[in-house]
Amino acid sequence: MTPEFDLIAKYFTRPAKNAALGVGDDCALVNVTRGCELAISTDTLLSGVHFFADADPFKLGHKALAANLSDLAAMGAIPRYVTLALTLPSIDATWLEAFSRGFFALANAAGVELIGGDTTRGPLSMTLTVLGEVDAGKALRRDRARTDDDIWVSGTLGDAALALRHLRKEIVLSSGHVEPVLSRLHMPTPRNSLGVALLECAEAAIDVSDGLIADLGHICERSSLAATLAWALVPQSPALMSAPLALRQACALAGGDDYELCFTANENQRAAIDAVSASCGIALTRIGKMQAGHPEVTVHDEHGAPIKIAAAGFDHFKR
Amino acid sequence: MTPEFDLIAKYFTRPAKNAALGVGDDCALVNVTRGCELAISTDTLLSGVHFFADADPFKLGHKALAANLSDLAAMGAIPRYVTLALTLPSIDATWLEAFSRGFFALANAAGVELIGGDTTRGPLSMTLTVLGEVDAGKALRRDRARTDDDIWVSGTLGDAALALRHLRKEIVLSSGHVEPVLSRLHMPTPRNSLGVALLECAEAAIDVSDGLIADLGHICERSSLAATLAWALVPQSPALMSAPLALRQACALAGGDDYELCFTANENQRAAIDAVSASCGIALTRIGKMQAGHPEVTVHDEHGAPIKIAAAGFDHFKR
Repeated sequence: MTPEFDLIAKYFTRPAKNAALGVGDDCALVNVTRGCELAISTDTLLSGVHFFADADPFKLGHKALAANLSDLAAMGAIPRYVTLALTLPSIDATWLEAFSRGFFALANAAGVELIGGDTTRGPLSMTLTVLGEVDAGKALRRDRARTDDDIWVSGTLGDAALALRHLRKEIVLSSGHVEPVLSRLHMPTPRNSLGVALLECAEAAIDVSDGLIADLGHICERSSLAATLAWALVPQSPALMSAPLALRQACALAGGDDYELCFTANENQRAAIDAVSASCGIALTRIGKMQAGHPEVTVHDEHGAPIKIAAAGFDHFKR
Repeated sequence: MTPEFDLIAKYFTRPAKNAALGVGDDCALVNVTRGCELAISTDTLLSGVHFFADADPFKLGHKALAANLSDLAAMGAIPRYVTLALTLPSIDATWLEAFSRGFFALANAAGVELIGGDTTRGPLSMTLTVLGEVDAGKALRRDRARTDDDIWVSGTLGDAALALRHLRKEIVLSSGHVEPVLSRLHMPTPRNSLGVALLECAEAAIDVSDGLIADLGHICERSSLAATLAWALVPQSPALMSAPLALRQACALAGGDDYELCFTANENQRAAIDAVSASCGIALTRIGKMQAGHPEVTVHDEHGAPIKIAAAGFDHFKR
C-alpha cells in the first residue's frame, strides 16, 4: 500500500458499526431509518481563518466535528455519520494521532460514525459532511418562526469571541476566567441532545456560529419576520460579565463560535421548554420576540434604545 | 445579507426539486427511497495537485463533480445529491459564473441536486460529497471479486495521463490527437449509467482514478485475490497508440484521471456484459482474470513476461 492509504488506514479506519459499508470502498453505504429524513451539512475549517496554524490537534479534531454536529443540533437531527476530507501540509504522525483522538472522542460521545473521506497534501484544512436522522417533517427549520414566538437561546453567548480577544492580547482576563473561555473557543459542546428534545416544543432554530444577530437574522430572513431582543436578558458568563459593556455586547451579539442554539417557540411552550432545560441540564433563556416587520434583528438596551454593533457576524469574504 | 451569503445565493442556490429542503438552512433534508441504501463519497480537488491554478473554471466545475460522480458509478449507485465546499482566494464573479455553469451542466445531465456546502476564503480547492441510491445489498463493492472472474474495463485508458504529458511539453502529439486527449483530462465522463447497468452482471468494481494497477490493486486487497492482465488487451485510443510503448504502458496502466470503470464478473456473464456495452454505447473490454494468490496485479506482455511500471498509481503524499 502507498503512504496515503497507510495513513488513512492507521488513523481513520474503524470497523463500521452502523453503516452497511464504512471506509475503504469508492463509497460508504448506509441505511436510513424508515420514517426519517436525512439531514446533511458540510462545513470547512481552514487554518488561519477558523483556527490558528499551531492549534492543538486534539482540540482541533474535536472542534472540527463539533462545529458540524452543531448544524445537526440546529435541525433536531440525531447524528449518524460523518465524512472527513483532510488537507495536510505533510504527514506528521504525532499531529494525526492527536487530531484523530480528539475527533473520535467526540464522535464516540455523539454516536456518529466516520464512513469516508479523502486526504490530500496542501495548506491545512478540513471539510466535514455530517449526516443525521430526524423524523420526516419534524426538523427545526429556519423558515418556521411565527409572529409572537418567544426567542430563546441556550447556555451563554460571547465566551468564544472573548477568548479570541484574550489570545490576541486585546484584553486581560482575570486568571480564573481564562480557562473557561478558552475551553468554549477550543472545545465547544454541540447541543445535539437539546436539539432533539426541542423537536416537540420549538418552531425555528439555528446554531449560533457566526454571532447571535447574524444567525437570528437568518431566521428572520427565511421566516419573513422581525426579531426584537432585550440586551438585559442575553445570558452571559461571569467571565464576559467582567468585561466592559461595549466588548460584552460585541462578543455576545456578534461573536462567532458559540455553538449554542437560538430557537423560537410559541408562548404556550414555556413550561415544556423549562422542562427540556432541566432534563438536558442546559440553561435556556428567553431573550425576545418574533414580530411582523422587516426581517432584521433589533436589540434594545435597558432604556429601550437600539444597540448598534459594528460587526454583525463573521463573513469570510468581508474586506 | 453579507457578501458570502450573496455569493452562495447568486451562483449556487437552485430550487430544491427532489430534496425536502435544499440550500439555505443549517442542514439539507432528503428522503431516501425505501429499499435503497445511500452511497456516500467525499473527494477533494486542490489547485496545483489535482488541477492547474489557471484551469478553465467551466471545465473545473465539470471535472470536480465528474470525479465524485465516478465514485457513485463504481458502486452502481444512481446520483441524487451533492454538497460543495468551495475555498476561493477571492470573489471573482467571472470565475464563479463559469465554474457554476460547468458544475450545473453536469449536475443536470446526471440528475444530481446541489443541496448544501460552504464557501471560505483561502487557497483554491473544492471538496464535494455525493450521495446516491442503490438497491440494498446490490452495490458493486471492491471486496466482491471471486476466483476466475473476468476483469473488464470500460472505454480506453491512459488518455488523461497522456494529456498531462502534452501540457507539460514532455511529448509532442499530432494535431488531431490533442483535442480528444485534453477533453479526457479536463471534461471526463463519469460512467454512471454503466455502473447501474452492471449491477445485474458484475461482482466487484472500482473507478480508475489513480491508475489501473493501483485501482485494480484495491479490488485485489479487499477481495484477497490476485489479478493477471494481458497488456495486449488493454484498450487504448488512437492518440495513445501513436506514443512510444513505455509511455503507453505508463499512461494506460499507471495514469490517473481516466474515470473509467474496472470491474470483475463471472465468465457466464460475458453475453450480458456485451449487451450492457451495446445499450450504454460504451466499449467494455475483457483484459484479464482474478485468481487465487497474493493480492497484487501482474501485467504480462505479448511474450508472457511481466511488465514493470515505475509509478504504480498517484499518491498525493509520495515524496
